[in-house]
Parts: sequence; structure tokens; C-alpha cells
Amino acid sequence: MRQATAIIPGFRFAGISAGIKKSSANDLALIFSETPAVTAGVFTTNKIKAAPVKLALKHIASQKGQAIIVNSGNANACTGNRGIKDAKDTIDSLAKELGISPALVYASSTGVIGRPLPIEKIKKAIPELVGSLSPSSLQQVASAIMTTDTFAKLSSRKIRIGGKTGTIAGIAKGAGMICPNMATMLCFIMTDIAIKPQALGSALKDAVQRSFNRIRIDNDMSTNDTAMVMANGLLKNAPITKNSPLYRKFANALDEVTHELSKMIVQDGEGATKLVEIVVKGAGTEGDAEKVARAVADSMLVKTAIYGMDPNWGRIIAATGYSGAKVDENKLDIYLDKIKLVSRGTGTGKEAIARKLLANKDITITINLRSGTKSAKVLTCDLTEKYIEINAHYTT
Amino acid sequence: MRQATAIIPGFRFAGISAGIKKSSANDLALIFSETPAVTAGVFTTNKIKAAPVKLALKHIASQKGQAIIVNSGNANACTGNRGIKDAKDTIDSLAKELGISPALVYASSTGVIGRPLPIEKIKKAIPELVGSLSPSSLQQVASAIMTTDTFAKLSSRKIRIGGKTGTIAGIAKGAGMICPNMATMLCFIMTDIAIKPQALGSALKDAVQRSFNRIRIDNDMSTNDTAMVMANGLLKNAPITKNSPLYRKFANALDEVTHELSKMIVQDGEGATKLVEIVVKGAGTEGDAEKVARAVADSMLVKTAIYGMDPNWGRIIAATGYSGAKVDENKLDIYLDKIKLVSRGTGTGKEAIARKLLANKDITITINLRSGTKSAKVLTCDLTEKYIEINAHYTT
Repeated sequence: MRQATAIIPGFRFAGISAGIKKSSANDLALIFSETPAVTAGVFTTNKIKAAPVKLALKHIASQKGQAIIVNSGNANACTGNRGIKDAKDTIDSLAKELGISPALVYASSTGVIGRPLPIEKIKKAIPELVGSLSPSSLQQVASAIMTTDTFAKLSSRKIRIGGKTGTIAGIAKGAGMICPNMATMLCFIMTDIAIKPQALGSALKDAVQRSFNRIRIDNDMSTNDTAMVMANGLLKNAPITKNSPLYRKFANALDEVTHELSKMIVQDGEGATKLVEIVVKGAGTEGDAEKVARAVADSMLVKTAIYGMDPNWGRIIAATGYSGAKVDENKLDIYLDKIKLVSRGTGTGKEAIARKLLANKDITITINLRSGTKSAKVLTCDLTEKYIEINAHYTT
Repeated sequence: MRQATAIIPGFRFAGISAGIKKSSANDLALIFSETPAVTAGVFTTNKIKAAPVKLALKHIASQKGQAIIVNSGNANACTGNRGIKDAKDTIDSLAKELGISPALVYASSTGVIGRPLPIEKIKKAIPELVGSLSPSSLQQVASAIMTTDTFAKLSSRKIRIGGKTGTIAGIAKGAGMICPNMATMLCFIMTDIAIKPQALGSALKDAVQRSFNRIRIDNDMSTNDTAMVMANGLLKNAPITKNSPLYRKFANALDEVTHELSKMIVQDGEGATKLVEIVVKGAGTEGDAEKVARAVADSMLVKTAIYGMDPNWGRIIAATGYSGAKVDENKLDIYLDKIKLVSRGTGTGKEAIARKLLANKDITITINLRSGTKSAKVLTCDLTEKYIEINAHYTT
């Protein structure tokens, strides 16, 4: 559910305009936990990392956090020593204003790469930011971190833990085509459920693997990608461990939140009109299944055909063939939703029915290699003129 | 040079309309050598191969050929046993009409995948095709093999071999974005220079590696990609061997022809307005240099920024970072033509000058990793709304 009013006990939120974006849109956000929270994070694997990511990688070693300050409009990446200093200044200023240790503060940035962070604007805005904190302002955070996103992305779940009801709520931003060129993906999740650091880290890593990593190729991360979760334990349940029976319940709820957010990110892909799930079955290895799913999902020819409502399965089969996976043309079946377009490598002539299905907003392409038992799924979207329009003029 | 009137002694050409394309454009072409020619070919590495490619792979074992029949409008790929039968029928009908052995005939197809070849139309057109053969009709062949190409691609060179002047002339078709999703690339080269099969094969393989393989990623070949060369030896020079001093001269001229054709293919990339060369220097290994060049060349964000004349080096550096190559952010320099945009990982503030340079049609992006001595080059083009328009409605 896109829930605009999630309340997570002990967390407060704020989103304001600090004048970083040229527009007057909100561009500075704060997530604050009243008590230090168990904190886990997954960060970009890009060799070039933004300054705030470099600092977060140090802070996260403590497995603790209490505040996350996020700006949009500037990525603070490729900004050299000044970038590091600016990120530290942001953290120190916020920590001072909140009266907490800078070690418990994380900064996160998204926007244009290579321009100095307007640090004076940020420092000047921090008192107002802290003054605006409210338990019901998660929506404002989700909005303030947007770049070319067209809607704020929120998801939450409630689960019963030892007779009490705990909340897991998350927000995210995406945009960009996701595949193959990821604009910055940011995701922040909050919960009042008590959980041990190791269990929280493990649940986050798995959830990211099954959600955000399904909507892009590993190597295609931006310099700023971040997924973080803070668990403040205010539910006062016995802290969940990896071996506790409740771990699976917690992990499943976290999975649902990250899955829903990742789906929203694809739905909001720049210029996208359709959400496309690529399902590969019958592969000899999981690696082969993933190769095929990613090659098809990344194919600009497949993406444009779907936009044009053109059941051009030739482009799907060509991408399957060049994916690098072991493929036997004479065994291959391809489905568009339930319609079998290709049987054992040749067309079934059902293009007319398929064309009608392509009018839908949600489309599933299934490729059965019939060469084994392994499978993989990737989410992608169509490619439209609007994507070009948005990205041809982004920094100007 | 785009030479429309290349004459290669002993070769005749024809291009006519057989009614395969919906438009009345020419769609059937013939290359014929009056005598059997030494023949070499490089074919798609896609696991899914078109029927004519499967047959060509058998015929090429003889290292001989005398005729190549090419149709556009239908790829004869993923057409099962019928596709093989249709390709054989095409070859047999043509061989009969020409009065030569079917083993010396090659078929080649380009167009939509998965539709049966209109074999009756082709067979019916063969007498007219053969009747139209003329030494001066190479241009007609180049036109008849076009799909979404906007201009016919020809290139030729003359070289002195043992006191005589030999000719190497080639035609090609491309279109598609080339990277990362290749539409079918076909290239046919003819020469009257006598050369041994092994030397011809080696020269072709190297030429393709340095030209057509520079404009795409290996795995991204279509089901039909083909580059063939026929040498009929009518110049009567002592046949060139790999060890002969003239081998380098021949290979260089062949390189020039394939390089020129590959450049035309990129210039004619669907909707492209700019030709972009990505040069990577200072890499620790050649593999790393190639990874960076390809990641930058394939980046839709880089391609759209160039289209929008936006010197957004952040997208270049991000692609460099996710390329998988070993990269040290603090050493990295990036140039747009001669303008240094990034020095040791941070911006130089020269965006205004760079923006002016982006008005040019030919652009070079140089990335110096400053971590070694290896380099790589890749040619690509910008990404425009026109590409989407062309590809969203291709089969309809």
C-alpha cells in the first residue's frame, strides 16, 4: 500500500526546502529516532562512491544510528576533499542541533554529480529542519528526496510480535531507467521492533537482493545508492535473533516493504508507461537464468517494442541468444502473460492476441529454456520518448 | 569515400524488388563472381542463428564461393525446419539459374525474426535478379540490403600489387543502436586481388575485430550478423600468403574499408545525430580499458546527455565506476575533445566551453585512468527520441 501516514513509534520526520534545487521543491529531509537504533545499511558497489557514502561506510561499523539527513539536488559525488568536508559539516551541524553524537548521524545525497554541495544553505536550514520534526511527516521525507521521481514512494507493514503489533515502514526514491543505468536509489526503512544487529543486517541484505537488486544489474549502481534500516526497539519485544522463530516473520515483512518499493521505482522509471516482469524458467543454472532475464530486461529493442505494443518476440529471442547463457533454440518457449508466442524456437502466430495484451500496464514475459530447473525474475519498464526528453536536459 | 560506382573486375551485381518488404523498395540483392572465389566469413556468435547463417557456416568450410544472395525484410531466423528448407531452396534456385554448384552459393537475410521467408516470391524473382547483373550495380546491392538504414554504405580502396592495381570494395548495412542491441549487421567485400584462403581469413578476422567489433559488445550480435569477403584473383598477382610482404598492405586496405563502413553504420544509428568515440587510456589491462569504454558507450544516460549537448561528466564517471574495471577515482581524468572536464576525479568547471563543443557532429570522450599503459576505443552514437519512434513500431 502507498501509505502516506505511517507512524512508527519513536521516529520523527521532516522535509523542507533548503534552496538546493533550482525549483522551490523540498530538498532536505531528516529521519530521527528518539533513541539510538540498531542500524544496518547496504551501499553502492560502484568503485566511485559519493562523499556521504564513504562516511556512512565508516559509521555503519558501529551498527548504530539515530538520524539520517538526506538532500536531493546534489549528489556530493566526485567532489574531492571538499565533498568529504561538506558531508562531515552536515553531520556535525545536525548532531549539534539534535544534541547527539555525530557518530550516530548519517548523511545521504542524490542529484547531479560533481558540483560542490551548497553547504551554507544546508547548515542554515538545519534548525528549521529539526524544528519541523513530526511523527506524521514520513510523506514529507519521501517527497523531499525525489529527483526526477513523479510520486513519493512509501510502503509499510504491521506484524504481530509476542502479542504486540510492530511496524516496518520504508520510503524510497528511484527514477532513471533503473536498468541498465541506475540513477541514485535511496531507501530508508524504520521499525520499532527490537532486533539484534546481525539479524537486521542479514534481513536487509536478503531483502535488497530480492528487490532492488532484481531491478538492475549489480555493476550498474550509481555513486550514491543506499538502503538503510533503523530498528529502535521501542516495541520492547525480546530482540529477534537470526535463530529466533520470529526472524522469518520479520524478514518476510521487510521483503514485502522492499519489494513494494522496488516495484514503485520501476513503475516510476523515467517516461515509463508499463511495468514488465521478465521470468526465466528451466535454466541449467541460476546464473544462466539471470543472464537471460537481464539481457532481455536491458534490451532497448525489447523495451521499445513493448512501448509500441508490438509483440516482437524476435527481439526477445535474440537477447536470449546473446545473453551468454547456454540456450538451445529448439527447446525455447516464450510467453506473453499466458499467451505462448514461441514454441520450441518458432513462432505460434498468436501476435494478434498478444498485441491486445500489450495494452495492459503490467506485463509478464516468460522464457522457458526447458534445459533445467533454475529460474530468475527481473523487473523492468518500457522505453519511451519521454525518457530521452527527461535525460537529455537533466543538469541544464 | 562513399563510392557509388566501384567496379571490381570479374564481379557483377544486382538489386531488385521481390515484394518481400511491404514498401516497393528493393529487397533482393545478388553478388556474383564470374569465377569461383576464395571466400572467408565471420558470422554471429549469437547462440540463436538464422537459417541462412547455419548453412553458410557449412559452405564456408570449402573456403570457396561464387554468389551471395541477400534479402531484406525478413531475417529467416527462428523459423525452424521450414527456415532451413527455404534457405536451401533459395540457394538451389539461384545456383540453377546461374548454372553453378549450390555449394558455391551463400544466402543471407535481414529483417523481422520469426516469420517464414516468402520463398515463392524469392524464387519467382530470381530470373529477373540474375538478368539484372551488371558490373556497375554495387550501389543497388548496398541499397537493397537496407532495413532501417537511411543511406547505402559503400567503401573501396585501390592498392598496387606487383605493378598492377587491385580493388577492394565493400558494402554494409547496420542500423539499430549498434550498442547495446545490435540490429543485423551485414558486410560483403569483394576484391580481384589473389590471396590464399588462410591469409584472407586472417585478414578478415582482424579487420572485423578492429572495426565492427569495436562498435558493439561481442555478446550483442543479432541472429544474422555476417561479414564475408570474396577474392576472385582476376588481378593475376602471385597469391598473397600470410608471410608475404604484401599481406600487411592488403590487410591495411581491408582495415580501411571495414573501418569506414563501421563508422558509417554508427553515423546511421537509428535516430543518431552525433558520432561519439570513447577512448580509454592508462588502464592496467586491455580488458579493463575495454570494460570502461563499453560501459560508457552503452550508458543510456551518457548517450542522452550528448544528444542534449549536456557536458554531464558525472554520468561518464559513474559508468566508469560501475564498469567492473579497476578504477582509482583520485587519478581519473576525463576530456571532451581537448577540454579537460575532470582532473584527478573532480570537475574543472569547464562545462560552458564543453557545451559548445557538443554542438559538433563528431565528439571524442577520453578517459585517462592513469593506472597503466593499456587503451581501448569504442565508437557509439547519441540516443534520441527518433530511436524510440523507429523501434517502437518496427514490425507493424
